Amino acid sequence: MTVSVLPDRLVCGLDLGGTKLLTVVTAPDADEPLLVTKSPRPGGDLIVALAAAAREAVAAAERAHPTGRVEAVGVGVAGLVDRGGVLRYGPNLPGLTDVAVGPSLTDELGLTVVVDNDATCAGWAEHQRGSARGSRDSVTVTLGTGIGAGVTSGGVVLRGAHGFAGEPGHMTVDPDGPRCACGRIGCWEQFASGSALGRMGREAVAEGRGAAILAAAGGDSDAVRGEHVSDAAAAGDGEAQAVLERFAWWVAVGVTNLIHVLDPQIVVIGGGLSELGDLLLEPVRRAQADLLMGAAHRERVPIVAASLGERAGAWGAALLAAARLD
Amino acid sequence: MTVSVLPDRLVCGLDLGGTKLLTVVTAPDADEPLLVTKSPRPGGDLIVALAAAAREAVAAAERAHPTGRVEAVGVGVAGLVDRGGVLRYGPNLPGLTDVAVGPSLTDELGLTVVVDNDATCAGWAEHQRGSARGSRDSVTVTLGTGIGAGVTSGGVVLRGAHGFAGEPGHMTVDPDGPRCACGRIGCWEQFASGSALGRMGREAVAEGRGAAILAAAGGDSDAVRGEHVSDAAAAGDGEAQAVLERFAWWVAVGVTNLIHVLDPQIVVIGGGLSELGDLLLEPVRRAQADLLMGAAHRERVPIVAASLGERAGAWGAALLAAARLD
Repeated sequence: MTVSVLPDRLVCGLDLGGTKLLTVVTAPDADEPLLVTKSPRPGGDLIVALAAAAREAVAAAERAHPTGRVEAVGVGVAGLVDRGGVLRYGPNLPGLTDVAVGPSLTDELGLTVVVDNDATCAGWAEHQRGSARGSRDSVTVTLGTGIGAGVTSGGVVLRGAHGFAGEPGHMTVDPDGPRCACGRIGCWEQFASGSALGRMGREAVAEGRGAAILAAAGGDSDAVRGEHVSDAAAAGDGEAQAVLERFAWWVAVGVTNLIHVLDPQIVVIGGGLSELGDLLLEPVRRAQADLLMGAAHRERVPIVAASLGERAGAWGAALLAAARLD
Repeated sequence: MTVSVLPDRLVCGLDLGGTKLLTVVTAPDADEPLLVTKSPRPGGDLIVALAAAAREAVAAAERAHPTGRVEAVGVGVAGLVDRGGVLRYGPNLPGLTDVAVGPSLTDELGLTVVVDNDATCAGWAEHQRGSARGSRDSVTVTLGTGIGAGVTSGGVVLRGAHGFAGEPGHMTVDPDGPRCACGRIGCWEQFASGSALGRMGREAVAEGRGAAILAAAGGDSDAVRGEHVSDAAAAGDGEAQAVLERFAWWVAVGVTNLIHVLDPQIVVIGGGLSELGDLLLEPVRRAQADLLMGAAHRERVPIVAASLGERAGAWGAALLAAARLD
């Protein structure tokens, strides 16, 4: 008989997204978290809400595992987070600039607190427990409302001088492109995020080449979102597949830019759109092979789907907090 | 009286460019090389030519410093060089694909040989002895015939999984742009290299807004190159300054893409165009401030000229070879 004994040291991770809050409690070395919870994004003061969520997760974990103690809390936030845990700015976080999330939560909780960019957290989780496990140099790109990235180089997180590395969503890829939430023109995020796929779907409908997309959205052209394009494409509609193919080309443009700069061993595609799997990834791989300089003389870089799902950010935040304990 | 004693351990560096070969011999820790030579790029077999150049440099160094011994040779080449020292491919090196430069030179010379990308070498020299000295996370961009980059992260060279990191010249920045030597469309190198400035100058002349540029080129519109634009701009010509301003905007686009991905502490601009100094860098800095996501909430990243001139590549190759000795 094997007796599985949970270690007593636990860590908690929170991932604050645009609409929801994911929470993970895990032993640092565990292959699966002890608890994963999901709730709507809390309103009111950010620090108060995060502290309450952390306390609730800690209490739940200690009920489930009475000898366990949560020793550190990690938080992932969709914005520029500096090395001191201050959320400086996020294009999709109006009103939340220069908030000292890390220092304030440390005071509130009396625990070790680590705050980092949400995609950095998700990338670290995929590197430690998911699709990039076993690699040293990896790039995880999260395609959601916006685009984020978590980069590892030589087995460690690439953070940059200030903590702001891994923002490829704001690479300029077309100076004639649409305006981005960050105020600039032609950011990759405007061509390859979930929001961008929705816009491309609405454009297809408006131009009379999106009947199945429109039907998937219940006939309301304003309601067309990315999932209506992918649903229609998955059902075999040629027009929707053409939209998805063009979208995949744009995904490949940014992924290839990252390969030119970073030369990773593997590229992991995460975020909501990664649920499309090979429906999205096969055309991305084809386009990427055409876009890579010197492709005939270098190794193909595998482009794979993330494997940890929506808990990746919170899990990665917990793992980054655990690393701070040692 | 101070007696300066040269150490006996020396290293040699070679930088093979499109038209010239630079050679450096230096003590690993020296602030100035012992010897720097420049010659036309040798013809004939690449390995034979490099071995001859290395032997000549070693002999000259040992004449100048009789107790010195060259213990390692570094070579910088303008292409994709893998971690085993094989030159895989370079868009501007026709016919030189999959050449085992490192292994062959090791056999020829009987010394430790390190081969790396030329811009990686130049970036390492600027990081160790030049404008990025004292930083941990730096990006050196070389603007010449093409565009290369040398990146350091956490104080070490960012090489990537295969050795191919740091090729921002082939980031797609405009899918409607011109075709690149690498065969693809809209690479940054087509907008922000020395060759691109020349093309922009010829375009200005053809459109009747480049009289001073044409005069700088001796009245021959086909002979217009980047230096004619910069000469006319430096002399105060408004039309040439407008071309240079537009060019600087494109330099800033790629530099800002790199800042979004890598978040360096400093960006060093090297290569032939860096000789323009603030005439180029001031408009680059202005454009970069507009292009950076969240600029009001983050540190300005200094953009400075390289300080080691054309010997940077060979010196950096020598320093990378020295590191292999320890």
